[in-house]
Amino acid sequence: MARLAKLPFADLGFARVDHHRSLRAGFPEVVFCQGKRPEHVVAIFSELLSHGSAALGTRASQEHADAVQRALPQIHYHVSSRLLMSPRPAIVAPRPGPVLVVCAGTSDLPVADEAALTAEFLGCHVERLCDVGVAGIHRLLAAEAQLRAARIIVAVAGMEGALPSAVAGLSGRPVIAVPTSVGYGASFSGLAALLGMLSSCASGVTVVNIDNGFGAGYAAALTLRSATTAPLEQTRSPES
Amino acid sequence: MARLAKLPFADLGFARVDHHRSLRAGFPEVVFCQGKRPEHVVAIFSELLSHGSAALGTRASQEHADAVQRALPQIHYHVSSRLLMSPRPAIVAPRPGPVLVVCAGTSDLPVADEAALTAEFLGCHVERLCDVGVAGIHRLLAAEAQLRAARIIVAVAGMEGALPSAVAGLSGRPVIAVPTSVGYGASFSGLAALLGMLSSCASGVTVVNIDNGFGAGYAAALTLRSATTAPLEQTRSPES
Amino acid sequence: MARLAKLPFADLGFARVDHHRSLRAGFPEVVFCQGKRPEHVVAIFSELLSHGSAALGTRASQEHADAVQRALPQIHYHVSSRLLMSPRPAIVAPRPGPVLVVCAGTSDLPVADEAALTAEFLGCHVERLCDVGVAGIHRLLAAEAQLRAARIIVAVAGMEGALPSAVAGLSGRPVIAVPTSVGYGASFSGLAALLGMLSSCASGVTVVNIDNGFGAGYAAALTLRSATTAPLEQTRSPES
Amino acid sequence: MARLAKLPFADLGFARVDHHRSLRAGFPEVVFCQGKRPEHVVAIFSELLSHGSAALGTRASQEHADAVQRALPQIHYHVSSRLLMSPRPAIVAPRPGPVLVVCAGTSDLPVADEAALTAEFLGCHVERLCDVGVAGIHRLLAAEAQLRAARIIVAVAGMEGALPSAVAGLSGRPVIAVPTSVGYGASFSGLAALLGMLSSCASGVTVVNIDNGFGAGYAAALTLRSATTAPLEQTRSPES
Amino acid sequence: MARLAKLPFADLGFARVDHHRSLRAGFPEVVFCQGKRPEHVVAIFSELLSHGSAALGTRASQEHADAVQRALPQIHYHVSSRLLMSPRPAIVAPRPGPVLVVCAGTSDLPVADEAALTAEFLGCHVERLCDVGVAGIHRLLAAEAQLRAARIIVAVAGMEGALPSAVAGLSGRPVIAVPTSVGYGASFSGLAALLGMLSSCASGVTVVNIDNGFGAGYAAALTLRSATTAPLEQTRSPES
Amino acid sequence: MARLAKLPFADLGFARVDHHRSLRAGFPEVVFCQGKRPEHVVAIFSELLSHGSAALGTRASQEHADAVQRALPQIHYHVSSRLLMSPRPAIVAPRPGPVLVVCAGTSDLPVADEAALTAEFLGCHVERLCDVGVAGIHRLLAAEAQLRAARIIVAVAGMEGALPSAVAGLSGRPVIAVPTSVGYGASFSGLAALLGMLSSCASGVTVVNIDNGFGAGYAAALTLRSATTAPLEQTRSPES
Amino acid sequence: MARLAKLPFADLGFARVDHHRSLRAGFPEVVFCQGKRPEHVVAIFSELLSHGSAALGTRASQEHADAVQRALPQIHYHVSSRLLMSPRPAIVAPRPGPVLVVCAGTSDLPVADEAALTAEFLGCHVERLCDVGVAGIHRLLAAEAQLRAARIIVAVAGMEGALPSAVAGLSGRPVIAVPTSVGYGASFSGLAALLGMLSSCASGVTVVNIDNGFGAGYAAALTLRSATTAPLEQTRSPES
Amino acid sequence: MARLAKLPFADLGFARVDHHRSLRAGFPEVVFCQGKRPEHVVAIFSELLSHGSAALGTRASQEHADAVQRALPQIHYHVSSRLLMSPRPAIVAPRPGPVLVVCAGTSDLPVADEAALTAEFLGCHVERLCDVGVAGIHRLLAAEAQLRAARIIVAVAGMEGALPSAVAGLSGRPVIAVPTSVGYGASFSGLAALLGMLSSCASGVTVVNIDNGFGAGYAAALTLRSATTAPLEQTRSPES
Repeated sequence: MARLAKLPFADLGFARVDHHRSLRAGFPEVVFCQGKRPEHVVAIFSELLSHGSAALGTRASQEHADAVQRALPQIHYHVSSRLLMSPRPAIVAPRPGPVLVVCAGTSDLPVADEAALTAEFLGCHVERLCDVGVAGIHRLLAAEAQLRAARIIVAVAGMEGALPSAVAGLSGRPVIAVPTSVGYGASFSGLAALLGMLSSCASGVTVVNIDNGFGAGYAAALTLRSATTAPLEQTRSPES
Repeated sequence: MARLAKLPFADLGFARVDHHRSLRAGFPEVVFCQGKRPEHVVAIFSELLSHGSAALGTRASQEHADAVQRALPQIHYHVSSRLLMSPRPAIVAPRPGPVLVVCAGTSDLPVADEAALTAEFLGCHVERLCDVGVAGIHRLLAAEAQLRAARIIVAVAGMEGALPSAVAGLSGRPVIAVPTSVGYGASFSGLAALLGMLSSCASGVTVVNIDNGFGAGYAAALTLRSATTAPLEQTRSPES
Repeated sequence: MARLAKLPFADLGFARVDHHRSLRAGFPEVVFCQGKRPEHVVAIFSELLSHGSAALGTRASQEHADAVQRALPQIHYHVSSRLLMSPRPAIVAPRPGPVLVVCAGTSDLPVADEAALTAEFLGCHVERLCDVGVAGIHRLLAAEAQLRAARIIVAVAGMEGALPSAVAGLSGRPVIAVPTSVGYGASFSGLAALLGMLSSCASGVTVVNIDNGFGAGYAAALTLRSATTAPLEQTRSPES
Repeated sequence: MARLAKLPFADLGFARVDHHRSLRAGFPEVVFCQGKRPEHVVAIFSELLSHGSAALGTRASQEHADAVQRALPQIHYHVSSRLLMSPRPAIVAPRPGPVLVVCAGTSDLPVADEAALTAEFLGCHVERLCDVGVAGIHRLLAAEAQLRAARIIVAVAGMEGALPSAVAGLSGRPVIAVPTSVGYGASFSGLAALLGMLSSCASGVTVVNIDNGFGAGYAAALTLRSATTAPLEQTRSPES
Repeated sequence: MARLAKLPFADLGFARVDHHRSLRAGFPEVVFCQGKRPEHVVAIFSELLSHGSAALGTRASQEHADAVQRALPQIHYHVSSRLLMSPRPAIVAPRPGPVLVVCAGTSDLPVADEAALTAEFLGCHVERLCDVGVAGIHRLLAAEAQLRAARIIVAVAGMEGALPSAVAGLSGRPVIAVPTSVGYGASFSGLAALLGMLSSCASGVTVVNIDNGFGAGYAAALTLRSATTAPLEQTRSPES
Repeated sequence: MARLAKLPFADLGFARVDHHRSLRAGFPEVVFCQGKRPEHVVAIFSELLSHGSAALGTRASQEHADAVQRALPQIHYHVSSRLLMSPRPAIVAPRPGPVLVVCAGTSDLPVADEAALTAEFLGCHVERLCDVGVAGIHRLLAAEAQLRAARIIVAVAGMEGALPSAVAGLSGRPVIAVPTSVGYGASFSGLAALLGMLSSCASGVTVVNIDNGFGAGYAAALTLRSATTAPLEQTRSPES
Repeated sequence: MARLAKLPFADLGFARVDHHRSLRAGFPEVVFCQGKRPEHVVAIFSELLSHGSAALGTRASQEHADAVQRALPQIHYHVSSRLLMSPRPAIVAPRPGPVLVVCAGTSDLPVADEAALTAEFLGCHVERLCDVGVAGIHRLLAAEAQLRAARIIVAVAGMEGALPSAVAGLSGRPVIAVPTSVGYGASFSGLAALLGMLSSCASGVTVVNIDNGFGAGYAAALTLRSATTAPLEQTRSPES
Repeated sequence: MARLAKLPFADLGFARVDHHRSLRAGFPEVVFCQGKRPEHVVAIFSELLSHGSAALGTRASQEHADAVQRALPQIHYHVSSRLLMSPRPAIVAPRPGPVLVVCAGTSDLPVADEAALTAEFLGCHVERLCDVGVAGIHRLLAAEAQLRAARIIVAVAGMEGALPSAVAGLSGRPVIAVPTSVGYGASFSGLAALLGMLSSCASGVTVVNIDNGFGAGYAAALTLRSATTAPLEQTRSPES
């Protein structure tokens, strides 16, 4: 009851923490750490955990992680993906999925990690496939069965970003494309891959921001949940 | 049997028509008409219909439509969305959805039409909501229940393209964002909306190309089908 | 008399310091510190203070601040906003305002600080509202009364920069929009927010440079002063 | 009472017409005509006028104007500025202002017209100054008294867009800068002027979209009204 | 002897026609027609043919073609590729090749035509493969033998431009990639394909300008000739 | 005397015509016609000629020319360069120069015409050299003596814009580089040439706007006059 | 036999190493090191060398090199070009070529090194020519004989990137152009050179990514091999 | 005689040093140091000085300077402008000029220094004027006499880069405009100033690369020398 009384959010001065979203959507609050002072990140995580919410921090630096873990040792930090994760509640079966996270090259791994860990954190069954860029198309063809068995696919690629087009054609599955900043020169820090994915000749491809593995993993998980669970009961909106 | 013998595609010289995709994915072949000569579009539609495939033509000019309808009077042309559509087979209940197509302003209607008609053509239950841009946020709030009842939302907006962020936050649903070229000056033919949607502060938003209503409608329909139907039985791949 | 004799400016060789502006406009001289050598910044502040002018330094590094404070201990340095401020004269009541400084996320705080401190330095009554981005629109709606009570609003946002559109619609007040470089990838260091704000579908929005909190605070204060005070008596122009 | 009952907006299907805004803000509803079908523009104007609202249409083509005037002969069309204007109610004295609209060259006149007519439509006292670009600075200096007597200045310029910087320095007044698409080559349809104005070395300059004379005129009028009138009584918000 | 006396070029005032190049390189002079006045194009072709040189005109409009053919009926105009071609001398066997011209979609045909006709005009054996974009990768795989049998491949694609990467990987052959302006929105008139091809993850890919079928066909032919013929005897340079 | 009384300019309402500049600089007033209404151009020319000033109109359309010549038959219109020119006063010997206008290809002729005619209109001795692009470097080398004899060189080129670098190196003379919009695709309407010229590895190159033949011709003439004539007697400035 | 059994690739989890390519194309596998963790690079090199494949690592940092050489001391690291190279097998005569690597300035040397070393690693006879930019065209002319004797030319240049146009014209040979990031300001990290090379007025020029010396060297070597060796016997494709 | 025998250049392997240029043009050889290894810069300076040439190094880092001064103590390094200068020969009167170097703000000083020192090194009489940006136009007006007395003006400005337009109008003199990277956000490292200067509404303005003070100073000096000295006797060209 105390928690409901504080709805719709707690005003920390520098942040308005939304406990309501977790109730409403069943998903944790997400904290974009980049550009925030470490003490602010600590305070937001503390507020969320004190109300029993799960919390996910994205783009957290080592400095953010150190500050958070000093105050909240139960938070886990994953270095490659830069994710801060609160302990996850036990999963109630069955997990939706599989979400298949595919990446074009080994250099794309940190972004693919971010996507896969996010979808897992949100309760999905996740599979991985690595180093299947279109320049060696037989490596992708060898995984055709796995591609076609996925419910939804996250395709991560830098450079020319051609992987999602090939994956969408081969799998017949919806593909969330993640351009990465892998490359140099005319790849313009991921712009080439981004424009290529947006211009994809394949149907069923949607795109997120450059290096936004989190966004792809979140959208994949939300999509599966939204499509397959019973309609949300109409909660009282904060405006009423 | 004759049809299977021609797999995986019919080579018309200027085009390789893929009857296989329709079999495999359960979705019609899509013909990108822009830049094609009218006689080529006619030939491709003829080849598809002669094999009983459904067919959808996008970005068809009036000249394309005239040529196709002269040869194939059963094809329907929708002027605003520039879609060419073969007759749809009777829908087997229940239709997946609702897919909610939301647009920011009246000028965005042609793109919203393209998205809505595409999703309907692919068998979905589609709802519409028009002129709910963020500058008059109470118009969007008045539709909160409808937003939260959707399975997946297509949000269409030009200018600053802020609609998908607000919609994602209000609905808790996955949002496919479609930037439009509505605007002038610093909107750079849809670039401002595109970059804004990619940079959205809301989780659960994915993006398609500028003015690509078709792509959003297709992805929405494919996503619902992929998430909710039984796994595809592993068809014989064309390479084996 | 000695001061008037030096009109219209003092030529330091590397800078022409304008005592005249302060007389004419009632506002202090502003020193853009970035790219200037610390000893030059010190000399300019010294020249200004020796004539009794107030002075505001923007984009000052810690190195600038150290040099200035060594020579002029009465100058205050605000770390987050990077402002150097001379002691302010006592304010003669009533202060114009309220100027309401709104920001979308916690990462936008340094820019919001710069705007708010500038407007206060120039004599305005300033209020603050933080972390009210459009993805959680109910957080903004909860502050509707405060929005509508402002005389002028400074809206600070990075990423897709949608906040000013929503604020302008809700408040019916003029909004000075400040894009920030918060974000990554397709936000292109604030370009996405900048283009979005320029393309805003809401009327009454004007825009300043990326991260230019100073510019927004100054324009807000100058606007209130210009609109509400008696016409300036026609001072003798420097050309006459 | 009937009008209040229809609050907050009338849903025409393709548009949600906001009578509420006019009540709330005292300003007319604005219709962005570009990209809208003429019959839609007619219907929106009809809906607005049937409720006694004033209405302003921007970026209206001759085709829009013809359709609207056929149905609503009382609507005036101004060719150069492409504005559609409903009859204005009699002005209650005194008019706020002066708003001074300054333009750099004769080719900038259509945009300056749009700004000046908009501010006048919204009840301001407007003055004009034309062809005072910085390449002939004595032409601008000759108007220094007029510049300094303005409450707010709209400065319109294409090419390098240097006018607002010079005007802001000379006048000590807030300047709303409007870049125009006048120029060629490296002016990139107004981009050079836009970037220049955003990067202005003068304090007190804010910027609107390229060729957005309407936006500047509206912001000028809204600013004067907001700064000088008594606080709005808190109207019942549509969400309550 | 008279011809040699006029070396190194004939000065027509508006053009300096290089008979020398044809002698030196064994290839015809190429006339870039776009932006030239028809009478100038006629005069250049006349000068070239009067000396027995072969001549190729690129980007010729119908107006150019009409003017040239009126004066020089032996010149052939190919509408789709916009090439003007003088009669070709009989080919001395064997023709180098095969040059394989591959294109992603039917809309890319005009550019593929330009590449193929150019290489044929320069004496190569040319093969064609059409509509093998990466979204239907089995259509490309079906042609693997033909890909691997080519000496050099020209790969033409718009949209995301992923074809050259897949072709290079499958064929093990050098690929000259031609981005086309096919697409819309974020394809930015071929920019997406161009950047993608330059950023290709496949080795052995080089790129020419957007829609530059001529450049690719010329480079392919020149490469085969340069690699396989005996070294050129050192001709007297024009400077000596 | 009457003329002096009207100094510093005549205010036509839509334009402030500067007779002073002609007196002060010895050069005619220049009218940028693009975007101006024909009647405005006529009025400005009439005002200038009524005071005996020479006048030059740039970027004049045929419609501008027709309107001007109807009112002022003595004005000459040059179609290719789009210049409107008043009769020139007899030249007093000796003419400064030579100004050498060099262009890379025949398609660059209109811009080269604009540069050459402007410099001649301003009294210079002008020479021309056409179709000497760097791809046929011996055509340029053949003119080395002419290059080295020039006082100043205007180098006009589109596409990659390499001509000014080669010309500066060969001639040892100052080069004003004019990028043209000749080209397609990655030449981005002259951007490639512009960036190339700005990045030139040769010393002594300065650059004007894309297609700005006028600007180059004017700067060349002004430079020769400024460098070689006696210092201007200090005229009374308009501000004093 | 064991090696064939592992075809088509070895899956290391984070990478799928393609031994097949080396067999099929006769060229070594190439490892793009940038963005990969050192231990991953070590593992890939180890896998390749354990199967007797040659291996080439590009864009390797000193940290990559240290890790690789600790495990595999036979690998050579070339600092300037950042290449990691396995020992090369003895060359069977005759070497194809000459490949001539030309660079515009001394600052372009690291990229020229990368091109030359790559082509040599792939078995070509390579020659070098340095500091022959177009601003001192006689330095290039002095090497005309060497230019004309090459089979294929790699032309490396930053700033305005004009070298390939001049080289192509002088040599009559195919030119692979490599833009470098040498320059500042409007060279935009190689963009000026890239656009210039793509827009080259010379025929026979193809382009690779900015600073991609490896890509140019590889394409040159592959082209010579493909053009001059007997057709590859049709190997069993991995899909059959 | 020995020196002439080595014409036209000395090939150091990594550089071709041009003694000829100094003879031909009377100006020293210029060495672009950025991106060159220190030992290469030392070797080039040594070669030049050993033949008695004057030498100027641009964009030299402290590391370059240390290496050069260790080997050649007579070379002077100017820190702010990053110039390396050999001892200048005694000037033979009279010096051409004045060249007036004007800069908008104190932060532009390093670039203004580079321009002024270069022109002085090349023998000109140089004057300076600092901190006269257009936002305080009376500071510029106060120097009108000095502006009008210059033979040629170098105008240095960042941010919106408006200074050259105002200077050209006031002075009636040719202006070489230098955009600087001073500014932030939408100034895009000097792009705003560059585009503004290229689009200047004032006649007589030419532009060099961002931060290219050297280029402006060199062009100013070369222009004065070329315009005022007797024609160069036709030297024997290196090709003859």
